[in-house]
Amino acid sequence: MFHSTTAVLVLAIGALFAAHTSATDLSFDTINNRVIDAEYAVRCPLLDLAKELKEQLKDPNNDLPFDELYFCNIGNPQALGQKPLSFNREVLALAQMPSLLQDENAAKLFSQEARDRATTYLDSIGHGVGAYSDSQGFKFIREEVANFITARDGSDIPAADPNDIFLTDGASAGIKSLLQVILRDDHKEGLMVPIPQYPLYSALAALGGATLAGYYLDEDSRWATYVESLQTALDEARKEGADVRAMVVINPGNPTGQCLTPDLQEEIIRFCIKEKMVLLADEVYQENVYAADREFHSFRQVALKMGEEAADLQLVSFHSTSKGFTGECGLRGGYYQLHNIPQDVVAQLKKLASIFLCSNTIGQLSVGLMVHPPEEGTAAHAEYVEQRDGILSSLSRRATALSAGLNKLEGITCNDAEGAMYVFPQVRLPTAAIAAAEKENISPDTFYCMSVLRNTGMCQNFSQRP
Amino acid sequence: MFHSTTAVLVLAIGALFAAHTSATDLSFDTINNRVIDAEYAVRCPLLDLAKELKEQLKDPNNDLPFDELYFCNIGNPQALGQKPLSFNREVLALAQMPSLLQDENAAKLFSQEARDRATTYLDSIGHGVGAYSDSQGFKFIREEVANFITARDGSDIPAADPNDIFLTDGASAGIKSLLQVILRDDHKEGLMVPIPQYPLYSALAALGGATLAGYYLDEDSRWATYVESLQTALDEARKEGADVRAMVVINPGNPTGQCLTPDLQEEIIRFCIKEKMVLLADEVYQENVYAADREFHSFRQVALKMGEEAADLQLVSFHSTSKGFTGECGLRGGYYQLHNIPQDVVAQLKKLASIFLCSNTIGQLSVGLMVHPPEEGTAAHAEYVEQRDGILSSLSRRATALSAGLNKLEGITCNDAEGAMYVFPQVRLPTAAIAAAEKENISPDTFYCMSVLRNTGMCQNFSQRP
Repeated sequence: MFHSTTAVLVLAIGALFAAHTSATDLSFDTINNRVIDAEYAVRCPLLDLAKELKEQLKDPNNDLPFDELYFCNIGNPQALGQKPLSFNREVLALAQMPSLLQDENAAKLFSQEARDRATTYLDSIGHGVGAYSDSQGFKFIREEVANFITARDGSDIPAADPNDIFLTDGASAGIKSLLQVILRDDHKEGLMVPIPQYPLYSALAALGGATLAGYYLDEDSRWATYVESLQTALDEARKEGADVRAMVVINPGNPTGQCLTPDLQEEIIRFCIKEKMVLLADEVYQENVYAADREFHSFRQVALKMGEEAADLQLVSFHSTSKGFTGECGLRGGYYQLHNIPQDVVAQLKKLASIFLCSNTIGQLSVGLMVHPPEEGTAAHAEYVEQRDGILSSLSRRATALSAGLNKLEGITCNDAEGAMYVFPQVRLPTAAIAAAEKENISPDTFYCMSVLRNTGMCQNFSQRP
Repeated sequence: MFHSTTAVLVLAIGALFAAHTSATDLSFDTINNRVIDAEYAVRCPLLDLAKELKEQLKDPNNDLPFDELYFCNIGNPQALGQKPLSFNREVLALAQMPSLLQDENAAKLFSQEARDRATTYLDSIGHGVGAYSDSQGFKFIREEVANFITARDGSDIPAADPNDIFLTDGASAGIKSLLQVILRDDHKEGLMVPIPQYPLYSALAALGGATLAGYYLDEDSRWATYVESLQTALDEARKEGADVRAMVVINPGNPTGQCLTPDLQEEIIRFCIKEKMVLLADEVYQENVYAADREFHSFRQVALKMGEEAADLQLVSFHSTSKGFTGECGLRGGYYQLHNIPQDVVAQLKKLASIFLCSNTIGQLSVGLMVHPPEEGTAAHAEYVEQRDGILSSLSRRATALSAGLNKLEGITCNDAEGAMYVFPQVRLPTAAIAAAEKENISPDTFYCMSVLRNTGMCQNFSQRP
């Protein structure tokens, strides 16, 4: 699970507060328990150790066996050297400073295509990037997204509608909104998530007071999602009284790197319809597919191609500028697309968006740039293709090298990364290591990852393997 | 309440969904009731009418008595023509496209100060704005914020600590986080908010399942906050069983425009300590003070100057790049500062931030630019001062003109805007108007605002007057 990724670490070491102990109210004992229950990697002992090692590295006389820490616990491509696409950044610089468009040197500094796009965007906005946008996101960007989806999914199914699209601060913000609407406070709700999963989902379930109904991916079948496993998880959760009304599928997988085949997707869709569950499709790695025999198909495409049989499917799909070859994590761009969600629920999602005014406008423009590259035949397009293909082939090369390298190690086996930016190896520890972990009163996987970090400087996630 | 402001309107008119009616689960009847309960201006009949009028205006043969709609229902300065500060935008353009720093024409296009600042920021980040930052926000920006607070609040009290500062997507995101931590799901919580208030607070209270304990501002005393009124509201809420543990003060006021005096702030602080309530100080309008006899004092400054007497105060203050003379609403920059909050609660806030990875990096840099203008004596500083003073004097002039104009109208009285960007007039309607409203089955204030909109194109908020 440590491929071309790095970490968001909360590095600030809390200074001791003034010696005075507060007699007032807000204390650990009086805050929202759901926040405390939400687990997230940031508080794990591994990142505490990484923080400690980072401090030690600052001492030139440190005796650590490495010179640098590699944060592989979260997908953060640009922190590991992936470059942003030039066209996108040209347009965003011009959007920040429209006066550059008028400058006599502009033609030397920015491609014609970038100047044209920036002009189009600024004309569409009317008053620059410094005003709040429509809460749902700029309409002209939502139109670009709809065009992209229509082209991606094929012309033999209905075109996408900009009114079904909401622009968000990264995909996470959209997922949060949907779960806030779906999970009811006065019910014992359940949320189906894959095991292993991306911890955003377990954290949001905890914040929403829901229980997790985890379904196992089949490691022996390239991390496939089988309906039997879905049914087992669902039956178990319902037996325990959970009202399970939504299911998360991450495709391509995080952290498992698999890419689903359309026939498995069809089965998942039938299952969701049969069990009356909304399908939440996390499709943020749709551009990252490496396996020669796999390609990305959106759940929307698969469902619409199924025709009447899938007409009852309720689907929300999520995408982000943070992954793929765009890799703009820091700009926080993303969107979600609603499919078959009633208008009175859409109205509630609009209201929820309006409470927080709008997502950041630069992130919104970066979504437009992701889904609408420069026109073919232009110089900007040629540069874009070169940069895109360079990034994707580098990711693919590293994906192959990583799983091959891991499989050579004693006690480690690992599926190939078919997509996304991760592999999830199986590590079989010797009995002595397990005993040593027990002695330290930590789990064997924690023990292993702490040892890797101490000995190599490589910080990986580990808490997701069941 | 309609001064130099405009609206975030959700303009997308939902296309009808496919004729097929879903048999699956997600419907208005099965979503989270708390979302439905959260009221927000966006769904009010006034904005529906505005949307309708906007469509009518597109027809060149329309017979509306105005040519343009003025959205005055939310503070969105750049949508009404306020220009961004040049220095800030130069730095942000360079941060998007660092290659510009190397260009031979860079010196002609960007001031030396902007190039220096962009270089400093990019060096501090290391890998550009496209990677996730520390979840709490870039440390170097939090240091700039701490320096700003220390300088603002004076050197006779302790310096601010960057570890107490969290960078957020606008102030709203920070307020949401704090309330998510404070409001417990298994308690009947209460939140004290002013009447009239900014609707974010009532919406967040509803989402958190809390009841509002509204305290009245004293219109006859320039919208002052008196402890008697706080006590009345608190006693009433507690009598009804609410566990009231936090109180919001908006200073300068939104939508009432008042600026509190330090003696009133001291009384509020004593009240919060006595009643064991966290004080949430919304100080986003701290740069917007117009009254000659008033100046902004932060609650932090007032509390620290009180010394031992206020040592028990727990305080969180919020600031934003969206208001003041910065006015960068779309970039979604903001921060909050914790004061006297225990470290184990801070850890939970860090975890919550990490679940959503980080706030947008451009917004973070815009916070740095807001709190750290160009150095005095530089050309960039002279330009900055000119632009800043131009914006502030224009806002001040319009504030005066607005309340003077309103006070000349029959049946309308209005306090001067001492600060912020709003006035909140009192409109006494004739009996016939009230009867007409009753006939239309709407409240008299809705009736009045709808009439103003229909006759002048001016869209104001109205739902906040009790």
